[in-house]
Amino acid sequence: MDKLADIKKDFAQWYQDVLTQSEFIDSSPVKGCFVLRPYCYALWENIKSVLDRKIAQTGTQNAYFPLFIPESFLKKEAEHVQGFSPELAVVTHAGGKKLEEPLVVRPTSETIIYYMFAKWIKSWRDLPLKINQWANIVRWEMRTRPFLRTIEFLWQEGHTAHAKHEQAVEMAEKILRLYKNFIQNYLAIPVVAGKKSESEKFAGAESTYCLESMMQDRKALQMGTTHVLLHSFSQAFDIKFQAEDGSLKTPYCSSWGVSTRLIGAIIMVHGDQNGLIMPPKIAPIKAVIVPIYKKDEEKELVLSKAKEIKEKLCKQDFIVVLDDDEQKTPGAKFYEWELKGVPVRIEIGPKDIQKDQIVLVNRAQEDKSKKKTFVNMQEVDTALKELLDQIQKQLFDRAKEKLDKNWHQADKLEKFGPIFDKENGFYQTGWCGSMDCEAKLKDFKGTIRCLLEKKEHDSCFSCGKSSKTDVLVANSY
Amino acid sequence: MDKLADIKKDFAQWYQDVLTQSEFIDSSPVKGCFVLRPYCYALWENIKSVLDRKIAQTGTQNAYFPLFIPESFLKKEAEHVQGFSPELAVVTHAGGKKLEEPLVVRPTSETIIYYMFAKWIKSWRDLPLKINQWANIVRWEMRTRPFLRTIEFLWQEGHTAHAKHEQAVEMAEKILRLYKNFIQNYLAIPVVAGKKSESEKFAGAESTYCLESMMQDRKALQMGTTHVLLHSFSQAFDIKFQAEDGSLKTPYCSSWGVSTRLIGAIIMVHGDQNGLIMPPKIAPIKAVIVPIYKKDEEKELVLSKAKEIKEKLCKQDFIVVLDDDEQKTPGAKFYEWELKGVPVRIEIGPKDIQKDQIVLVNRAQEDKSKKKTFVNMQEVDTALKELLDQIQKQLFDRAKEKLDKNWHQADKLEKFGPIFDKENGFYQTGWCGSMDCEAKLKDFKGTIRCLLEKKEHDSCFSCGKSSKTDVLVANSY
Repeated sequence: MDKLADIKKDFAQWYQDVLTQSEFIDSSPVKGCFVLRPYCYALWENIKSVLDRKIAQTGTQNAYFPLFIPESFLKKEAEHVQGFSPELAVVTHAGGKKLEEPLVVRPTSETIIYYMFAKWIKSWRDLPLKINQWANIVRWEMRTRPFLRTIEFLWQEGHTAHAKHEQAVEMAEKILRLYKNFIQNYLAIPVVAGKKSESEKFAGAESTYCLESMMQDRKALQMGTTHVLLHSFSQAFDIKFQAEDGSLKTPYCSSWGVSTRLIGAIIMVHGDQNGLIMPPKIAPIKAVIVPIYKKDEEKELVLSKAKEIKEKLCKQDFIVVLDDDEQKTPGAKFYEWELKGVPVRIEIGPKDIQKDQIVLVNRAQEDKSKKKTFVNMQEVDTALKELLDQIQKQLFDRAKEKLDKNWHQADKLEKFGPIFDKENGFYQTGWCGSMDCEAKLKDFKGTIRCLLEKKEHDSCFSCGKSSKTDVLVANSY
Repeated sequence: MDKLADIKKDFAQWYQDVLTQSEFIDSSPVKGCFVLRPYCYALWENIKSVLDRKIAQTGTQNAYFPLFIPESFLKKEAEHVQGFSPELAVVTHAGGKKLEEPLVVRPTSETIIYYMFAKWIKSWRDLPLKINQWANIVRWEMRTRPFLRTIEFLWQEGHTAHAKHEQAVEMAEKILRLYKNFIQNYLAIPVVAGKKSESEKFAGAESTYCLESMMQDRKALQMGTTHVLLHSFSQAFDIKFQAEDGSLKTPYCSSWGVSTRLIGAIIMVHGDQNGLIMPPKIAPIKAVIVPIYKKDEEKELVLSKAKEIKEKLCKQDFIVVLDDDEQKTPGAKFYEWELKGVPVRIEIGPKDIQKDQIVLVNRAQEDKSKKKTFVNMQEVDTALKELLDQIQKQLFDRAKEKLDKNWHQADKLEKFGPIFDKENGFYQTGWCGSMDCEAKLKDFKGTIRCLLEKKEHDSCFSCGKSSKTDVLVANSY
């Protein structure tokens, strides 16, 4: 197997290398579309199952809407069509004939879902209506990168309608918190939450809230977004309800989503020179047992103990793999499972059995002297649980430390611009709110990732006039 | 709300009526594509979760492959392209440009998956390779009917590669049994298993196994299929492995799938004049509690008891709804929940509370005198469990009885043909195996649904010569 590119010197190549060498994904015959191999798909299923439950707890129900959307639908809301036109894949022929109206493959489902909402919403009693969909999405991107920007990706998209504007805002904010908690607690990735500027908003939104995280190369990745849609959206699709007072009103909508992009973030935040590192709470495999023996007479004893431990752990619902492949050396196994980022390796050999102990190895620990824990064989389950919790915390703390270290208070663009062009990192600065000043960032690699709640800067990074809000400026994926 | 069409006189209209009136599905702006509303999607999620676990137990892993397939891929296996060409939806333009090679939206994924298999399979140690995908599928059908024949549908497709021919056959047969057990035990639908004739086989298969069930109008519905693929399939995609003896060999593949069509079967087998009936094991909601009171002073008591019971049942993992909508009469609630086919209704009123009892009402029981069971309030959980088990059995037995009653031993086509043209039903008869004789069925509505294992007929239904195998002839969806 080839070596991974140096994570410090060529992060982009390391990312490609680790994804293919760990058998996580593969390129496909369709450029920009990737195959999610079983290990990767299992991670997505874990993400899905936790998020799905949390979304259900907000009173949102899952449903499924068509993949195809009549081309005319996207044109109903002016900003929406502008935003998505360049990215559409269009079905022009089907069943051996040219279609009367071309169909686009959904780049997002607002239009078709709000068309249905118009049929379903008649009275205030039908509100709020909260629907979520797990689906595949197509956006024709020219330059693709696995998980971050691909022609097809998987996601969840929530769409809600409310009687009042503040309820739509509340929904968008509630889901943003839900995403933030999920990403921090399960994926062990610290996030910065804030609103997007006008120019970075979703096409058709009145306001977009977003979550931004820092990757190891100190670039920002947008982790998820929630939107309060323009009222024109409901109007364009003629969604109306009879209010309690009998009058006819237009509801307010929110939409929100996270995608397989989260997987890219896990890799780019936690991975190291040896491969992936899966946060324990979401890891497809929590631990791998590697039996170690040299002589044939040791083999039977070690293997039977290894099986016993596997069974004990499986009974307690740990997902554990026993790697008893006889064609591979323990060293080769260590390498492979480290590459795949299984959080804990359990080693067991004849000497351990003599001492009634086993060895737990922490995948995330960089300090070699602290990698191994020797535990009593009887306590393997509690020890594993503790170590998994510890790794989960360790991964978050490490990422948080990196974020804090690379979070800079910045003043004038002419000063910090050239620095982040070289160094990346997150730059907190003041902004007057004008699009002209925002556009000045185009001379550098950064953009306003989001408006921040805290205000620590008095003057705009560009014009120097009074600042309205602090912003986070960063180079991003 | 409109009345449902008469299930006995106009089954097709009843089917449309029940699907829309129960808010199960809705038509969409794209003809032939339907929206699966939350109650319907929850049923699909239940089906998915049970099947997914059973499929995993066969050592098959989930993965995800691209939606788009290069048009040239389908042409690599001659029969496959012939079979699917008329049904393809084709993306010709994307990202604002005409594509160099059109992409088809997957009508099934054999071609793209076997292209990947060729990359992944190098040695006998990589076999068997067993992959499953949950995905949306597009086939451009001219005449559509919800769940049975739609332009887009959801399914699971398994694809496996094996070193030996008999292993591929064994896999196809094992999954057929898995499907059969699932459909019979969870969906409460009896199935007939058998092989397809040459002319009814999957495009590209050496042999196709299928499961056929009888709907209430006595027509057959194909519930699921498994295939042993032609060896030409692996050859066309150049899948090769090094055998243990060092020689280069071509693996044998199987593929298999069931789809949202199963939902159509549940409706068409179990539904009645009052609406849907959900088999308890797979029902999205197991029971609905309807509080009954007239006076205001009764309300508080009844509602608090109803809540208490709901909590007790929820704690034991029953999915139960309490319908405490004050704007609706109990009668209106009965009607709605019967329409949705919730297996058990729990009624609770002031008199019941006095007697420390509640009433369980069996949705599936036709005999009015047997519909209600009065149970002690303390025993509601065990009583509910028993009743759900009983309903599950009742639904299967009823469907089985109907199947047996309409299963005819038939002799000559000229005699039974005109009868099944009027009556439908399943006809077991002998067949010499010739395609000419099979083609004679075209004068009537029937086709050979499958070859049967049991042999009870000596002569062919058409030519009268010696029969090779018994076949099941039926009119089908």
